[in-house]
This record gives sequence, C-alpha cells and structure tokens, in this order.
Amino acid sequence: MSVPAQSEPMPTEPTQSRHAPAAVPVSAPPASRTPAAEGFADRHVGPRGDDTDRMLATLGFADLDALVDAAVPATIRSGRPLDLPAARSEERVLADLRAVASRNRVLRPMIGQGYYGTTTPAVIRRNVLESPAWYTAYTPYQPEISQGRLEALLNFQTVVSDLTGLDVANASLLDEATAVAEAVALMWRASRAATGTVVLDADLFGQSLAVTLGRAQAVGLPVVVADLTDGLPDVDGPLVGVVVQQVGASGALRDLRPLVAAAKERGALVTVAADLLALTLVTSPGELGADVAVGSAQRLGVPLFGGGPHAAFMAVRQGLERTLPGRLVGVSVDADGAPAYRLALQTREQHIRREKATSNICTAQALLAIVASMYAVYHGPDGLRAIAQRVNGAARCLADVLRELGVEVVHADLFDTVRLRVPGRARAVQAAAVARGVNLWAPDDDHVQVACDETTTDEDLLAVVLAVADAGATDLAANPDGSYDVGFVAHRRSRVPEHLARTTDYLTHPVFHVNRSETAMLRYLRRLSDKDLALDRTMIPLGSCTMKLNATAEMEPISWPEFADIHPYAPADQTQGYAALVTELQDWLAEITGYAAVSVQPNAGSQGELAGLLAIHAYHEATRAEGAEHRDICLIPASAHGTNAASAALAGLKVVVVATAEDGEVDLADLRAKLDQHGPRVAAIMITYPSTHGVYEEHVREVCDLVHAAGGQVYIDGANLNALVGLARPAELGGDVSHLNLHKTFCIPHGGGGPGVGPVAVAAHLAPYLPGDPTPAGSPGTTAVAPVSAAPWGSAGILPISWAYVALMGPDGLRRATETAVLAANYVAARLREHYPVLYTGPAGLVAHECILDLRPLTKATGVTAEDVAKRLMDYGFHAPTLSFPVAGTLMVEPTESEDLAELDRFVDAMVAIRAEIEGVAEGRWPLESSPLRQAPHTAAAVSADVWEHPYGREQAAFPVASLRTGKYWPPVRRIDGARGDRNLVCSCPPVEAYADDVR
Amino acid sequence: MSVPAQSEPMPTEPTQSRHAPAAVPVSAPPASRTPAAEGFADRHVGPRGDDTDRMLATLGFADLDALVDAAVPATIRSGRPLDLPAARSEERVLADLRAVASRNRVLRPMIGQGYYGTTTPAVIRRNVLESPAWYTAYTPYQPEISQGRLEALLNFQTVVSDLTGLDVANASLLDEATAVAEAVALMWRASRAATGTVVLDADLFGQSLAVTLGRAQAVGLPVVVADLTDGLPDVDGPLVGVVVQQVGASGALRDLRPLVAAAKERGALVTVAADLLALTLVTSPGELGADVAVGSAQRLGVPLFGGGPHAAFMAVRQGLERTLPGRLVGVSVDADGAPAYRLALQTREQHIRREKATSNICTAQALLAIVASMYAVYHGPDGLRAIAQRVNGAARCLADVLRELGVEVVHADLFDTVRLRVPGRARAVQAAAVARGVNLWAPDDDHVQVACDETTTDEDLLAVVLAVADAGATDLAANPDGSYDVGFVAHRRSRVPEHLARTTDYLTHPVFHVNRSETAMLRYLRRLSDKDLALDRTMIPLGSCTMKLNATAEMEPISWPEFADIHPYAPADQTQGYAALVTELQDWLAEITGYAAVSVQPNAGSQGELAGLLAIHAYHEATRAEGAEHRDICLIPASAHGTNAASAALAGLKVVVVATAEDGEVDLADLRAKLDQHGPRVAAIMITYPSTHGVYEEHVREVCDLVHAAGGQVYIDGANLNALVGLARPAELGGDVSHLNLHKTFCIPHGGGGPGVGPVAVAAHLAPYLPGDPTPAGSPGTTAVAPVSAAPWGSAGILPISWAYVALMGPDGLRRATETAVLAANYVAARLREHYPVLYTGPAGLVAHECILDLRPLTKATGVTAEDVAKRLMDYGFHAPTLSFPVAGTLMVEPTESEDLAELDRFVDAMVAIRAEIEGVAEGRWPLESSPLRQAPHTAAAVSADVWEHPYGREQAAFPVASLRTGKYWPPVRRIDGARGDRNLVCSCPPVEAYADDVR
Repeated sequence: MSVPAQSEPMPTEPTQSRHAPAAVPVSAPPASRTPAAEGFADRHVGPRGDDTDRMLATLGFADLDALVDAAVPATIRSGRPLDLPAARSEERVLADLRAVASRNRVLRPMIGQGYYGTTTPAVIRRNVLESPAWYTAYTPYQPEISQGRLEALLNFQTVVSDLTGLDVANASLLDEATAVAEAVALMWRASRAATGTVVLDADLFGQSLAVTLGRAQAVGLPVVVADLTDGLPDVDGPLVGVVVQQVGASGALRDLRPLVAAAKERGALVTVAADLLALTLVTSPGELGADVAVGSAQRLGVPLFGGGPHAAFMAVRQGLERTLPGRLVGVSVDADGAPAYRLALQTREQHIRREKATSNICTAQALLAIVASMYAVYHGPDGLRAIAQRVNGAARCLADVLRELGVEVVHADLFDTVRLRVPGRARAVQAAAVARGVNLWAPDDDHVQVACDETTTDEDLLAVVLAVADAGATDLAANPDGSYDVGFVAHRRSRVPEHLARTTDYLTHPVFHVNRSETAMLRYLRRLSDKDLALDRTMIPLGSCTMKLNATAEMEPISWPEFADIHPYAPADQTQGYAALVTELQDWLAEITGYAAVSVQPNAGSQGELAGLLAIHAYHEATRAEGAEHRDICLIPASAHGTNAASAALAGLKVVVVATAEDGEVDLADLRAKLDQHGPRVAAIMITYPSTHGVYEEHVREVCDLVHAAGGQVYIDGANLNALVGLARPAELGGDVSHLNLHKTFCIPHGGGGPGVGPVAVAAHLAPYLPGDPTPAGSPGTTAVAPVSAAPWGSAGILPISWAYVALMGPDGLRRATETAVLAANYVAARLREHYPVLYTGPAGLVAHECILDLRPLTKATGVTAEDVAKRLMDYGFHAPTLSFPVAGTLMVEPTESEDLAELDRFVDAMVAIRAEIEGVAEGRWPLESSPLRQAPHTAAAVSADVWEHPYGREQAAFPVASLRTGKYWPPVRRIDGARGDRNLVCSCPPVEAYADDVR
Repeated sequence: MSVPAQSEPMPTEPTQSRHAPAAVPVSAPPASRTPAAEGFADRHVGPRGDDTDRMLATLGFADLDALVDAAVPATIRSGRPLDLPAARSEERVLADLRAVASRNRVLRPMIGQGYYGTTTPAVIRRNVLESPAWYTAYTPYQPEISQGRLEALLNFQTVVSDLTGLDVANASLLDEATAVAEAVALMWRASRAATGTVVLDADLFGQSLAVTLGRAQAVGLPVVVADLTDGLPDVDGPLVGVVVQQVGASGALRDLRPLVAAAKERGALVTVAADLLALTLVTSPGELGADVAVGSAQRLGVPLFGGGPHAAFMAVRQGLERTLPGRLVGVSVDADGAPAYRLALQTREQHIRREKATSNICTAQALLAIVASMYAVYHGPDGLRAIAQRVNGAARCLADVLRELGVEVVHADLFDTVRLRVPGRARAVQAAAVARGVNLWAPDDDHVQVACDETTTDEDLLAVVLAVADAGATDLAANPDGSYDVGFVAHRRSRVPEHLARTTDYLTHPVFHVNRSETAMLRYLRRLSDKDLALDRTMIPLGSCTMKLNATAEMEPISWPEFADIHPYAPADQTQGYAALVTELQDWLAEITGYAAVSVQPNAGSQGELAGLLAIHAYHEATRAEGAEHRDICLIPASAHGTNAASAALAGLKVVVVATAEDGEVDLADLRAKLDQHGPRVAAIMITYPSTHGVYEEHVREVCDLVHAAGGQVYIDGANLNALVGLARPAELGGDVSHLNLHKTFCIPHGGGGPGVGPVAVAAHLAPYLPGDPTPAGSPGTTAVAPVSAAPWGSAGILPISWAYVALMGPDGLRRATETAVLAANYVAARLREHYPVLYTGPAGLVAHECILDLRPLTKATGVTAEDVAKRLMDYGFHAPTLSFPVAGTLMVEPTESEDLAELDRFVDAMVAIRAEIEGVAEGRWPLESSPLRQAPHTAAAVSADVWEHPYGREQAAFPVASLRTGKYWPPVRRIDGARGDRNLVCSCPPVEAYADDVR
C-alpha cells in the first residue's frame, strides 16, 4: 500500500557513486547528472512535430491545447498538473534501475512453495522473452494472424494434458493460487449441487489456501480445510469436491488413490494441484481418477520474477471442458480445408457470459506459457525426466545425509522438498543458510524445508547441511584439516516408490523431438513468430486495448538477474530494490489517478476489479449500521466490458444493468430508476471513463453524485486511462476505486495474451481494504482482506516496465502522450468519416482516444460484415481493430500516441481502399461470396495457385495497394471456421499426419 | 602472447563465493559445482543420436570413429587428445564469464584517441546487435536474399559520404588505423608514381601511425611523419600524398585549407582522417578539396568493446572509386527492372585480384556499420548535430573553467578534446581522475587530454576539474561547507569558429527523417531483416565459410557493460578480466592448433595472414646469414583463397603460384620445380588444410618437408580448421604459422559481412615476431614488429563468444563437432552424388567437411549454370552454397555440424528437385531462358501477378516442394543485373523517387 502522491525520486546512490565515486557538493549542483535528456517522449510518441501540425490542420485546430480543450469537457479536467519527477533519459533510467536492482540480493532459491529455481535456455530467453515479435503480439482473437502463438500455446496445452493425464488443458491461468480457486468454482459449476462443501487439503500452498478461502468467502461457498493424509474428513451434507496437492506444501509425496476413491464414492469431484516436473516421475492425476488438475508451469524455464508473471494451468477430464475457465486453443480448418488453430469455445469467456459468469478470467499468461512450452519442446520428454531425476536425486541425497547426521526427515517419500524437524531451531537454520547464500523455508519454529530444483548444485546441498550444523541441529565436527565428512556427492540417485511411479508416456508428439538442437529451436521460434502479426510490423488499432510502444529500454531490465531471480518469499532485506520500486510506482499511479493508495498485487485487470469490489464490499460491511440491509447490488451499464459483471459476481454482488442512452452515455433516467428501486442495497456502480464508446461523457460527475447520494461507491474502470493521464483523474471525477491496466496505458506488452497487471487504486476510506498478504506464514486465511494473487506484489518481475515508462516520460511526456492519442483517434475518425460513419462522438463532434466505425449500414446494404473488413485488413498487413465491441457490427479503432502519421495514413488508405471494394460488391461487380472481402484473408499459396477462379484478380487479392509490394505480410492460413473448431474440439497437438508438412 | 597449452581453467572465485559464500573444503569435494552438464554439445551439434546412426548407415559405417578413420589419413592424425577443460553447462559458462567480466572496471571513458563513450539506442541494441536475423547473416554476395542489410550498408555509405563531403564511400574497413594504411596504399595506386613520398600528420592517432608505418615498411613505401600545423614539410622528390587528421590526436581543430592547397600544388593527393561527429559541425574534407577521408564510425552508437569491433570507413572523390578497397554497395535493377542493391565492383575484391592486390581487405565490419548507420537513421541530421553540439559544449565549458582556474589549455579551437599543459603533473592528474572514476589520457608527463562524448555528464566535467586540483595543477579551495565554486553547469555552449564551420546540409534523404520514433525504427529494422535469409531461417551451406550455430549463450555476454564499455587504452588494472580471458583463449587456441603462441590482435583473417607473413619475414631477416639472399618469395597453390596472395603482397613478398594436381592436391612435381628455381629466396609456402577442395590431402607432410628443406616456412591457412579440431593440429602437420577464423570454426557470427577475428598462431621460433602493441604511448612505430590492428587485443569485445564456445564444448565436444561436420559433408555428398558429380574426394572416396558439386557437365549439356542453381535455391528457401570457388562452375557445400538431419535432407531434396528441373530443360520441356532455373528467384509479386507468361506453372515457381507451404521465404527482388550496377554506380541512397514505395 502506498502513501499519497509525492515526487521525490528514488535515491540512486550506487549509480552516482559509479559515475562520480568521490562526488562533492558544489555551489551550483547540476540539475541532472546526464546530458540534456534526448526526449524519450519524442521516441515514444509517433507523430513528429510537422506531422502533428498536419493532423491538427486536418481537424481544424491550431494546436494540441485547442484540440484537447474542445474534446475534453472542462468539467472533468483536473486543475492540478501531474506532480511527478521530470523526464529522464533512457540511459539515466537504465542506470537508475541498475541501482534499484542492486538493492535486491540474489540468493540460492531453495524456498519452494510453488516457486523454484530454473534455467531459461538462452535461446528461448533471447528469442521469446526478449523478442518483440513475441512480446508485442496481442491476444490471438484473430486466429489467422496468430497461428504461431496459437501453436505454441497448443504445445503448452499438450504438455499440461500429457503430464496431468487429463484430456483438455487451457492456456493459461494467472497463478497457481487463483487456479485452485477457479478449480473450486469449476467443481461447484460442474456438480450443479444446490448445497455442499469443498474440502481443501491443508497441505496446499499457503497462498493457494489464502486466495481460495477469500474467493469462497466472497460468494459464500462452504469450504473446509483438512489434513487429508489419512483420508477424507467428516463432512456433513453433500461433498462437492476435494482439492489435494501433489507434491504437498510440506514436501510429502502421498499415494492419492485411497483419497480419490473415497471422494468418488461420495460423488465428489477431485482436483489435484500438481507439480508438472514431478509428474514426469509420479503417477498423473488423470491416472489416479482425478477430474481436474491445476498448478504452475513456472519451473519449466520461467524466471522467479519476484513472484510473477508465471503461467498457471488447468486441465480437466473429458466432459468438463465446457466448464473450463480461461483460454483454450483448438484445431479447426481454414477455408481451404487446411488445419488451423484458433481459440476454441470463446463463448465461455466472461465478456460473453457477463453477469452469469463464475470466473472473471480474461488475461492469461500467454508469453510465460509459451516460454514453458518451449522449454518442454527443447528438453523433450527424456530431457524433462532427466531434470526431474536430478532434482529428486538431489533431494533424496540431502535427506539421506541429514538423516545419517541424526536430523529428523519428516517425509520418507519425497520429490524435491525435504522437510526437517529441528525443534526450536528453524529460524536459526534459516538464518545460517542465508549466511551461506541459501534461502530456505521455515513454516514454523520447529521445521525447515529445503526445495531442490534443476539449478541445485552440490555446493548448495553442502551449504544446507552446514547451515543445519551451524544452528546446532546436528553434530558435524570439522576434521582437523577443516573439511567435513559429508561424502554425498556420489549418490544423487532418483527413486520414486513403485506404487507412486509413473509408467505412462508423455510428450510423444514429434514437436517435442525435432527441435532439440539450438539451431532447430531457433528456427522453430522464428518460423512460428513469422506467422504472426505483432506491433513490430504494424499498428494494432484495437479499441480499448491500447497497443502502444513497448520501448526496449523499458523491457531490458526484466531480464536482469536481480529482478528475474528473486523468490517472492525471500526475506525483506533481500528485496529492498523491489520494495522501493513498488512503493514508488504505487505512489506515481496514485498521483496519476488521484487516489490515496494503490496495490500492484492484482496480476490482471480482472483481479484488480475483484480487489476493488472486495474493498467496497468490506468497507460497506465495516460501516453498515446495525440492522441495515447488506449492500449487495452492483450497477453496470449495458456498454460495460464483460469482465466488470463477472468480477461483480465473483465479489458476491448481484448485477443490475443500467441502460445506455442513444448517445452512448449512461442513461441518467434509468440510473435514477435503478437507484430508487435498489438504493439501500446498491454497493457500487462500475463505469468506464471515457466510456467504452470512446467518448468523454459530460455527465460522469452527475452519475457519481447520484450513486454517492444513494450510499453507493463508484468504481471507475481504468481500461481507458490512456485518454486521461495528465488531463483528468478518476478520483477527481468522483471515483472511489479504479483498477488500471499496466499492459495498456503503462506499456507492459500484451505478450500475445498476457501477462497483464491490474493494480487497484482506492480513495483513502478504502485504503484499509486493499488486498492482504498471501505470503504463507503458517496461518492461511487470516488476513483482514483476502489476497487476490499468489504473490504479495503480483507480477513483480514486469513492474520495472511501467516504472521505466513513467520515469522516462515525466509529467509533460505523459500528458503529451494522452493528447497525441486523442489527436490520432480524431485524425483517423475525421479522415474515415466520409467512408464509414463514426458511431459516437462527444463534445464538438470529437471522440476521445478511440472511435467506433459503424459497418452496420454497409452490412445491411451489401452483406459485407465488420468481420469481412477485419479479415480483409489482414491482406493489407494490418491487425484488425476491435470487432463488435462494444457494439455488434462495428469496428473500434484506437491508434494510440505511438503511431506516426505515415502509419495512420497507411491504415486510412487501407480502409478507404476496402471501402472501394465494398462498393464493388454494392455495384454487383463481385458477388459477396466471391469478393476479395469474403474470401479474405488470402494466403500466398492461394494467390499463386495454378488455378484462380475468383472474379477479381490475383493482384487485387494480394497487392491492393502499392505499398504492400515492399514488405508484405502473408497470412499463413485462410479464414478459419470457428464453429467447426468448437464442434470438433482438438485441444492438444493433433497427430502429425494432420499437418505433416508443418513439423520437421 | 601466450605460453604453450595448459589446461587449468581460469579461477572463478566470485561465482563460487556467490553460490557457496562460506565454502569449506570437504573430504569428497564435488567434481563440478553445477548439476551434470546438460550437454551443450548436444545443442550445438545438429543431428541427434538416431540421426547420426542413419547418416552413418547411408555411408556404410558402423560408427563415427570408423568414418573418421576412413576419411582422415592416419598420417595427419594427432596422437594426443585435446588438453582442454572439460565441458561446462551454459549456466556455468555464463556464471564464469560474469566472474571474468567483474574483473573489468568500467570507468568514465574520457581517453578519446579514436574511442569514445556513446549510447547505443536500446532499440538498435536489441534488434540489431542482439538479433540473430542480423548477426547470423552472411556477407551479401547473393544480393537477392540480402536486400535488408545491403540497404542498411548503403545507408552507412550515405552517412559517410554526406558527412565527409566525398562522392563514394565504402562499407566498411576494419579499424581507423588500417584505414589510414589503406588510404596510403590507395594514394600510391592512384598516383601511379614510380617514386615519391607520403607525409603523415604527426597529430594522427598513435595507433594509426604505428599500423601505417608498419604496413609501409613491409612494402618499402617511403613515408615521413611531420608536424603539419604550419604546412607541408620539406620533402625531396615527388609528393604522393598527405594524410592529416581532423580532429587531431592532440584535440587540435585546425584550418586545413592551406595545407590542402599546398599539397594539391605539389600534385599530391590528400587524405583526411576525420571524426564523423565533428563533421556535423566542421567543414567536410570534400569541401576542403581532400581526395580521401577515413575514420571510425565507433562513436555513432557502437560500444567501446575494449577496442573493437568497430566499423571504419573510407570515402573518395569521384574518379577514385575503382581504387577504393573494401566492399561497396551499389544500386542496380532486378529482372523486372525494379531497383535492387548489390555489392558493386566486386572485381576489386582481393579474391579476384589475388597477387596483384594492393589491399587484402576481405572481411568488413558489417554488423557495426549497420549499427552506426541505424544510429544516424534514428537521430537524423538534427539529432546528430545536437549531439555534436552537446559534446562540443561540454569540451568548451571544461576548457573555459580550467582556463579561468589558471590551467593552460593548449588549443583555442577544439571539438571534443581538451589538451591541458600540466608540467610534470600529467600522471598525477590521470591518477586523481581515476580515483574519481574517470579515465583521462596522458600522452606525456606534461600533458593530459580530456575527451568529451555524448555520455559526458556535468559530474564528469566536475570530476575532471577536481582531479586537476587534486594533483595540484590548480588552486581550487573548497568552501567551508565542502562545496566548490565551479559554476559551469549553465553554459555548455557549442561554438565552432566561422572559418571552420560547416555550412552544407547532410542526411537529407528521407530514410534519416521517417524512422525517428522507436516504433518506426523497430519496424524499419524488422522490415529490413525480413528481406534477408540468415541462419535463423535456413542452413547456409557455404563451403569454406563454416556457417554454424552462434549460440545465444555465447552471444549474450558481449552486451554486458563490463565487456562493452571498456576503452582499449584503459589502464591494465581496469582490464584484468579481458586480460585473463584473452590469455586463456590464446592458450586454448595454441593447444588446439599445436602452436606455441597465439595473438588475437588481427581483427580479420586477412590481418592474421599478414601478421603471420610479417612474422616469417622478420624471422628470416633476423636469422639471415651475412650476405645471403633475402627470402622474398611466397609460394601459393593455384587453388588458394585469394586473400593469401594479397596478404603476401602486402607483406612485401612476391607470389609464385604452384600448380594443383588433378586430384586437387598440391602438384609435388611443380612444387619441387619451384623450389629448385627459387630455393634460397623462398620465404614461405601458404597452403590450406584441408585444401580449399574440401579434401584431406595425404601428402601435406611431404609438402611441408620439402619447403622446410629449402629453408622456407610453412603457412597453413586455418580457414578449414573446422575439419581438424580434435583430430589433427596444423603445427603437427608441419606448419610454422596459421591464422584462424574465429568467425568460422569458433562461432563468432558473420554479422552480415563482419566482424571477423583472425588470430595468428605461431611455432616457438616465431613467437618473438607476433604483432606489436599499437597502444599510442607517445612513441609510435617503435615496436619490434608492427601491429596489424588499432587495438592491442583487436576485436576484444567479441572474444567472449569463442571463449564460451570452447568452454561449453570441452575437448570431447569439439572433437565431436569436427567428426559430425565430416559426417554431414559426406552424407550430403553421398546423397547428391548420383545427381551431381562430387569433384574431389580423398581417401576412401570421402570428402572432408565440405564437398564440391560439379555443375560443369550439366552446364555444357543444358546451359543451366551453377549460378542458376544458386538462384533457384533461393526459391526453395536456401542460401546458395559457395559459387565458383575454388573451381569455376561448381558449388561448394559445407553443411557444418550444426545442421540436423531434417535440414540436411531438406537441402538434398531441394537439390534433387532442382536436378529434375534441369532435366526439364535438358528434355526441352522448358527453354532455358524461360525455365524456372534461369527465371529464379521468383518474388511473391511475380507469382501472383495477373499475367503469367512462363511455360511452367506458378506453383512450380513458388512451391516446388510441399514443405515450402508451411513457411516460405520470399526473395524481395528478382535476379539482379550485376553488370548494369557496375556501369551505373550509385553508392549512396538513391533519390526517394527511385523507390518511392520503399520509404515511409
């Protein structure tokens, strides 16, 4: 939690000392150490000065101020400029971040608890994590231009499905803790029970318990935590489900068969929270009869990142796939009958289910799931097994040695984690280990746990043994020569008891066998990324998604070991750098939004929403007058993002929809009616500002006042904050809570569908109700407010990106970005208006930072749909704008400030050319079905086929505008049949015969 | 220089201490700190175990040993395995390199002398320097698949040409010192004078003088060094040329007009060694009337790298372009008449000129030239000017402050370097500056020089002032509060005297104006690299070029500040890491080659050859009996690489060609005849082993013995060392000297045409004659043997790549790589033999690591040329093998060990399919001129054109094999007309109209 805005920059001693080791105060101290900033804002903002002038001239404004004054209602403008540190140069910001990073201390990470040391193969680090072709990509909703990442995500699903032994896996969930919570919700959904209980294993990771209990409590699900070692506890009434963890948080490797059988007998579903690496050696949940498996794929090559982002997973047995939350890649065919990947079962996604949702999952952890999948591709089944055996061998070796030394090893059967009983000495052992450079886990005063991983060295094992000795928990006398008789190096032997051992194959698909040299891996990664269209090749004008520059200087630090290799539960004195960065970022975000406090814990926008609503709920409960009604209703305008309603449902609130007026604003009359009807029960209204219609509504303060007058709180969704930064503050509009999307406004790349970060920002009266600490300190579920993510700082590892963005831009740059975003949207709207009607406009006929192009009249007249235009844009080398949101049959265009005039014009030219093609259909030149619009996108194979039977020419198909001739992107497949994909669900790699040419 | 082979690994304390801070000796010390190595060799080597078996079966061998025993003559096999440290894992090597790096200390680099602090824009670092698409590319000899880097290099030429004010610039030279030497040679060539003198400015950088004097001495060119401040010195006889430096090494900014006028009057040519950044403010050499300009582009965004690699440049006025050494990109047209880039005037290259050469330049510094060009593209003319003004302002500010403090500032007019007269205190000032974190330059005991650059901060300036005070060179008393009255921050004003100031424009081409936002820059880089075919997409089976994996773990360390930000003349106590790494690498290379000593100074193979021949020459001179003939003849077989002859010429040796026998071996009879004829004058023979014919010759020892018997030395070119490592050692074959190509055998990437590194390895008797130290210590030209590169360790910055390769592979891995390379070449030869004759084979009908496919019979029968096949391979997604070297009309294929069986088979399949196409011509199905072979390569535009007039189909053109349908590379242009390009030379960016669509 942060204190209200302040503007002191973080101290940067180490850097200063590097550059001026003997710095002396001078009478005229330099204002800045580095030369006059080159103006990062000039690099971030696309249009050059001349361009800006030309764009303004098109709109008839003399300067940016005049445009902004006309576009943004005076009533919402902030009277106070941003109080943030002045812009710094890229070199300065990198140096300052180096200084911050140096305050984190990297020790050997043997804490475990769901986070393990792992080695990211360098070829994957450089060519996925550090490659703009992968990290600047958007979520693969447009499958034709996303075949590369869809294949990578399908590989992920195959890894999960194979290792868990279950039929269908998704790609992916936010973290293991929320995955457990989602599994509980799934079991409730699937069981269709009216009443009943879910039993949670007491040996679940603490953070899984904390998050899941919080989520269950919010919606009133009966949940029991029990020791499952000796079977099911006594539970009255129906048993809905059981969640058990393998390997247990205590390191126990248990035979789950009796438990699963007992649960089945009670008609309960069973979820296993599983360790993927362990499953290469241990019987899979599917073989045990479990229905669901969840867990984290972190240890498959994804850095610790101080807690995240990491990809969690969920797999289910056949029959449950339609209850599976999150994204699911499936196989369909394209218009030529060729196999093609797509996101399957999209109707499950919350933006469609809205208030009926039982999950608000939207963002996934695509980039990290891809890293994990590639780790499996690169190692193959034998490689993974060898790694697991090495890990197991290390743990067993350590256990043997310590047992020989008289230390009590708690579990006889173990995979990677050795639990030691050291009565009263646990803290001492932990401290001794730190002194030897190793972090251990001490769940209580009597136990320590040591988690081995693929990076564990013999020296690490020795350090642990010596630390135990240092703390007096064993007698280990040094020999006269200073050496110790610890001869354990020779016998790192892996052994899993026969009744627990896995006997089935996995990863038999060729993709896990043919990409095993670095050369082959490199080319596989390139081949996949070449199929996709990301920001490194084109603007992605997706309304509401703010696909702006993810600057390299913002991205570089996340690979630094001091950020990447920190365990989330490392002692606070080792994470001072992260703490300082998080605190300052929270302060800056508070200053930008006008709120009193910010928490960066929510690792997706949806989790930020949930956290915000939970804060509102807790506040109402805490302040409820004796005997007053519970406030359990959340008002949501019809135009809201679907996640809003889903989050409200998850927070235990009932959704009441408020109508949208014709001009796109909230219908004040309907709002009044709803408040009259539900007044004392209204907990909150959730609005988006500017609205999802891309307009600065003029009556937002009135909306807030009305809700406040009724005793409700105002939640302002920060999805469109890119239109406000430096011009207005949500808190000043009347908001009590907002979540922000750091992956929109604050430059975290979309990663092909995640990670996202969704900090929650609240007014002072809500500050006490920000998310609690999920750190499993032996007392799960006891925080005042439940945590919403597994790690205290959520996805800490990518917060340097947003920190760098704010530091680089400074207050003036941030405001200029906002103004330029508004300029760009209005420029596009103005140039396209005569070709496509712009659906909503605000004051002075201007839009905010995006505009909705209404295709419906053209569709009515010609049959050409917004989807046809979206697909045809691919032939022109563009990612489509947002399709049919928030209004069906429209395209929402958000160019952002990062696109220069040339690119905006290229887009306008494409849209104008497409408009002419629509005219061709209207005039009867081409039948709709055989028009270049309906036939879009066109592959290279199609336009160079010997046979061409379309009424339009090949050049019209492939090169409708001349600029394409110098650098054409070729969609790898033709239009994909979505419906067929859903009917014929194939969610793991299809047999090689299905796409023989595609695997080498 | 190194001592003979030893195998102790470098100490790695820092890493050990990180992992086991309180490491204690144990009775059973672990053999290795890290878990069992994953086997990097398994990642480096392409074929998996099964693949290897299948390949061996094709060849009829039971195992690799049997194949190698059959292929490699027993007479050349070494009896002693490699004595090198055991293989380490990638993580371990990265950790060890971190430890090495930490022994380098990064201070503020104000030494100057041709090396300056600069900021590599992060977007360029990540997307060029760290992008495999750029760094794994080959030299753009096949222009159709090299349009991206050719455009980038053309941009470089435009930058150089614009800034120097001269008509034609090359891209690029190895370093500024050799560029000066090349300029001297050029002036001699151009003047065609039989006698005469070249005058060198005494204010040239010391390394330029040292290298140039050495080169001049070797070929007996009369050269005089003189102070040119007051005009030309008295020189008897014809004056061939003058080289003057602007800005002088002393920091002097001089009016060169009188000097140029005086030189012209004497009929001399004038070369200006120029600073590109200064030229944004100062009158250009071209405007002054100079004929030639040379210099380094390092400070345009290229890291210091401990001395290199950096791109040097040379520009000449019209009329001299055909004397210009190095590579020159020009504009031609393709078969459709579209503009297309190519390397122009290739006949100039030494591989054609051979012994008539006056330059042996082969490798350029393409990757670094591209970085520099992109720096200019990103900053544009206004950005460069602003940077120069900031630099100049800093220097002037410093000069003003010190002058006010009573310190004597030597030059009134200056650009970036302030020379101070501090009698007797220079070393003290230097030491005081180091204590304050700043490196200065002290050319003698009475002067220090301070070079400002774009990274210079106000704190740096203050540190310098305080250091001067610390050393007692001025009175600067601290105020009572510890501060100083140095109020200079406010006035960083740039000023160049009017008579020196530049008044002309530069970089007016749109490319320097439209890529100024990071988004635009990112896309420009992607668009260019997408046009090219590099190792990240396909094998590059170039015989003699060894295009193998450049592993990411090998590449990552070069970006680390501790390697990248080291000035080559930093004090030795700051470069202990580099020293240790260089020493160990030299030792390892000595062990691998069997020689006694190695120098890594030569920054290209050609420079290694020159260094080797200079050593031989010096040895002969030193050991020459009184009155004996000078040994001045170098024997070179007809099949040798052209650089050999050129290097011999540069070393002052006369070339005598030895015939090649029909089987490709050296013709022993002819060798005996030549030795009989020239015996006492024979200095050396230069042979390549295995020969350039890709065969392990059986009589190599006999050749060596014959030459030794005649008193000559044996130079074994190491170009084909990839066929020897771990199996045989050049020294054991009888070699006295070899140069190695680290960019072939030792994994430094080719960078699209450089950098290369060409260490020279010598037997003990030649060790005293390795290249001298170029460090300008105030006494240029005094080393016993002349240096061949500007920096002591040459391209130190990329040596970590080769160090990492050897460390990762270990002795067994290295040998396995060699064996697999031999296996792959023989597999390809065996599978293709029935389709194309394999020209040369050695013992057992086997080839070494490459094979020559003889197209001549097919050409004779059908007219289809080797070039047609090379171009047609592009349609199949391959880079062509080596074309017409060493035998015209053939293709030489070197698959290397890094290609897996699938890729080898893909290549074989393509060649077989092409053979069938040739049959189509033979059978008259297609006339040659309208066959898919002669029409190759085919662009996407061509195959999707509305009109198709070829007798073969579009699918035959574009998708002749099915695998292309899943990831086709499209050549961006059709076949390029080379001759036209040479006739119509356009060597800087053509006007935008010429390719309007290509610029945005």
